[in-house]
Amino acid sequence: MSTSNEAKKAAGEAGAALVEDGMHVGLGTGSTTARALRALGRRLRSGELKRVTGVPTSPGTERLARAEGIPLTTLDDRGGQEGAAPLDLALDGADEVDPALNVIKGGGAAHTREKVVAAEAERFVILADASKEVKRLGERAPVPVEVLPMAAGPVARHLEKAGAAAAELRTGASKDGPVVTDQGLWVLDAHFAPEGLPDAHAFAEALAYRPGVLDHGLFLERATDVLVGRSSGNGVKHRRRRP
Amino acid sequence: MSTSNEAKKAAGEAGAALVEDGMHVGLGTGSTTARALRALGRRLRSGELKRVTGVPTSPGTERLARAEGIPLTTLDDRGGQEGAAPLDLALDGADEVDPALNVIKGGGAAHTREKVVAAEAERFVILADASKEVKRLGERAPVPVEVLPMAAGPVARHLEKAGAAAAELRTGASKDGPVVTDQGLWVLDAHFAPEGLPDAHAFAEALAYRPGVLDHGLFLERATDVLVGRSSGNGVKHRRRRP
Repeated sequence: MSTSNEAKKAAGEAGAALVEDGMHVGLGTGSTTARALRALGRRLRSGELKRVTGVPTSPGTERLARAEGIPLTTLDDRGGQEGAAPLDLALDGADEVDPALNVIKGGGAAHTREKVVAAEAERFVILADASKEVKRLGERAPVPVEVLPMAAGPVARHLEKAGAAAAELRTGASKDGPVVTDQGLWVLDAHFAPEGLPDAHAFAEALAYRPGVLDHGLFLERATDVLVGRSSGNGVKHRRRRP
Repeated sequence: MSTSNEAKKAAGEAGAALVEDGMHVGLGTGSTTARALRALGRRLRSGELKRVTGVPTSPGTERLARAEGIPLTTLDDRGGQEGAAPLDLALDGADEVDPALNVIKGGGAAHTREKVVAAEAERFVILADASKEVKRLGERAPVPVEVLPMAAGPVARHLEKAGAAAAELRTGASKDGPVVTDQGLWVLDAHFAPEGLPDAHAFAEALAYRPGVLDHGLFLERATDVLVGRSSGNGVKHRRRRP
């Protein structure tokens, strides 16, 4: 197994180990989260863990969770109950993590549903490896912005006015033309490499009121924990948000 | 013709009269805007007006514009040109208009694309009749909020926390279950009647950062003009935003 695969597996298994009996768990999307789902499936099948339900963030995750025998539900299951967060925990990957545990997600174009699920969870746990750690968000990864197709031009111009060096319509492997998201929309990638975003909060604010934007991949002040997998059986580094 | 139909026709024709040769025009959605489109088509066919192009805000408007012979284009046509707004003018209807020319739209579930188009227009002109004029937004009309289906429950709870008396999933005539928008999403109607919204800007702010929301029907500080049609051939009242 490659160093990166070992590290992803370590992070995924550490994430699955946080799940306790009876928990409602948000299930992220991507290669590291997939390792957590497999570990969760094993724990459920062995009987070590009971009465766990998951809320998937994409059709891909839904398929994998079903294959692993993880019972699925929706955000409304516990939503009406006074005082209880709909989810105890959400597990998800990231493209970049900064020192304050702010995150860029959306390399897999699933960030909008992931953000909906993250907002409902008491703990939002990012599973990563050391290659995702950056000093400043945007150093390497673009900020994905999910948009209405008719607004792709105006929003791209807005992103460049708001400071992006370039805003590119994401196009796909295995499909000609734009990548289409799970809700039928498109993705613009706003590039800030190599300097990174001068002010991630200001950029998020410039997007908040922009017509035609569904959601973007900046998750600011959302993650409560980051588990950074190490290679060669050296476990994980557990980073927690300072309150 | 009923009083209301006469007033809508007066507003629609006054809107179409604002269009000049060579203009790029945003074409809203709804029964009053439809009257403007018909008047615009007549002016083009008679040769009184030349080289006008329209950007439609819905498939319904696109069909009507084609039937009326209005040439169509996109927001990218003039988007790259330095200094020029992509659209000279956008014409659209409203569910409610307050004294400051703030507006609720989205009774026809087309508010998201309408807001994209409004943001690109130098002048955003609302076509209305007196029944749409209110002292306070929300007195009669709900605020429509377009959401991801998976987020309908969490967002409805959020709307009620943010002050709505109730947030109801819009269901349709001619289709069982939820109304599906032109981009495949759902609509929650946030009700504030009969008092209206205590603070429309605060409610818009509570929605701006909410995951799962595409856009809502509050158009605050966007309309530059409101044309209020009168019945019985009495023309229109022209209200302009104070700068």
